[in-house]
Amino acid sequence: MNERRFCGALMQIAMIEDRIVPLGELEPVYMDRGMYFGDGVYEVVRSYDGKIFALSEHLTRLARSLHEISITGVDIDQVRRRVEEAYERAAIANAKIYFHVTRGSQLRSHAGGRDVKPNFFLTVTELADDSEQKEHGVAVCTYPDWRWKRCDIKSLNLLPNVLARMEAERQGCAEAILVDDAGFITEGAGSAFFAVSAGQRQLVTRGLGADILASITRRFVMELAPQAGLTVAEQAMTPAQAQSADELFIAVTTMDIVPVVQFDGARIGTGQPGRYTKALMEAFSQFVAHST
Amino acid sequence: MNERRFCGALMQIAMIEDRIVPLGELEPVYMDRGMYFGDGVYEVVRSYDGKIFALSEHLTRLARSLHEISITGVDIDQVRRRVEEAYERAAIANAKIYFHVTRGSQLRSHAGGRDVKPNFFLTVTELADDSEQKEHGVAVCTYPDWRWKRCDIKSLNLLPNVLARMEAERQGCAEAILVDDAGFITEGAGSAFFAVSAGQRQLVTRGLGADILASITRRFVMELAPQAGLTVAEQAMTPAQAQSADELFIAVTTMDIVPVVQFDGARIGTGQPGRYTKALMEAFSQFVAHST
Repeated sequence: MNERRFCGALMQIAMIEDRIVPLGELEPVYMDRGMYFGDGVYEVVRSYDGKIFALSEHLTRLARSLHEISITGVDIDQVRRRVEEAYERAAIANAKIYFHVTRGSQLRSHAGGRDVKPNFFLTVTELADDSEQKEHGVAVCTYPDWRWKRCDIKSLNLLPNVLARMEAERQGCAEAILVDDAGFITEGAGSAFFAVSAGQRQLVTRGLGADILASITRRFVMELAPQAGLTVAEQAMTPAQAQSADELFIAVTTMDIVPVVQFDGARIGTGQPGRYTKALMEAFSQFVAHST
Repeated sequence: MNERRFCGALMQIAMIEDRIVPLGELEPVYMDRGMYFGDGVYEVVRSYDGKIFALSEHLTRLARSLHEISITGVDIDQVRRRVEEAYERAAIANAKIYFHVTRGSQLRSHAGGRDVKPNFFLTVTELADDSEQKEHGVAVCTYPDWRWKRCDIKSLNLLPNVLARMEAERQGCAEAILVDDAGFITEGAGSAFFAVSAGQRQLVTRGLGADILASITRRFVMELAPQAGLTVAEQAMTPAQAQSADELFIAVTTMDIVPVVQFDGARIGTGQPGRYTKALMEAFSQFVAHST
């Protein structure tokens, strides 16, 4: 099942739309294993008012993701310098910085060659204004969790997340909340998911494991919970339990905390962001201000 | 969670390795949803002695895969013409033709924009000589099936397959045989999996469903089974049952039937390709000769 290296190809060709190109003349990106297999991992960081937030935490997670899929030879300090240099050049106050590392470019074969060199790609874009969503909250709806069994790895295999989000948007929802075969919520298609029990003064979210991503925003939210008068319980909940919660919110790097005011069509609490959620948002803002 | 269209970006930038590029100047391939999400589907066809085999069957499956992930606006007849034109230009007698269709290129956002146009990419490469593997058989080893819940869709989300195949190669095996949580074999990381019971004159393979791909070679093999004196039983088997089978083989477009003579270290049958497997290989050759 081995193939010759594409650089040595003779009569071998590629076709991009209707254009035929000798295989050896292709840009490496066309032979990227990230494209063929989703064989790579990524991170998204953001800046607040000109400063990148929590880059070290994201780089630590990137290193773990790379390790878990045996991509070697990536200098994390070099990744850090690239992120910082690109952000400096873009000079966008509130930016989203996306970057991925793939196993590299080579003729398509599952196991790949030994001497492949990882590829790095990054974008810096301006964050959309999220004040409306943060002030009034968003609607979410459930979708089956079709993802693979290693959701702790932040990989480029995101088609189930895409399908879930597409269906959510079709239903007028900002996010899809994924539900596993046992009927429990795992997390959002692109966010962590939280419920608040006002009576118990408890913040509830699923515990870490192979079925969810170790969200960095999730971790910060949990650390800030006491400031909002909440204890944390890591336990899985059903959609019915979520619907009867006093407050719900999602957590994601690009927007930190976003209140959820509707879940599968049911109004949550008063239909407005709840007081504990607002307290957490305030604590998060202060934490950001002190950290950056 | 919407972003501006990348073509209208101003200060937004990309970085490829150490090179900074304005986002608007990037080739569309860098913004391909196939790269960001594996948001696309693919097919592999082969030629035998100058003729493409079973292209219609593969195009039918491509159309189904596209439909299942709601990629619209793809003209399957145009795909057929492109495949035929590229193959004619390459003029390789025994070629592997890989092609994928992704949802298109746009600024990264899970749900994506409405007006995105699908991207097409294809390669024609020379098939490696597989006579050694077909004559003497190959070793395979098991690996947990970590894939998503819609393996009936031939998508670009193939990282679990890559990890399984990498580990198989590390163990000196040609293929990884995936085993689900219930302890049953689903299929190979890049092939269908079959066992033969000589006593019962039965060919056994897992039934179709969302947990395996509707392999086209699998279908042909099942149709040819009577010619080899075998009836077909679609049932799941455990690794232990596979190890005690009289014969095993894998089926894959690029090599059609490949005997398996070792399974997780255990010798299968005499350690040489079995008589039923050889009869099926012969029937397949004749079928190819009549079909192309």
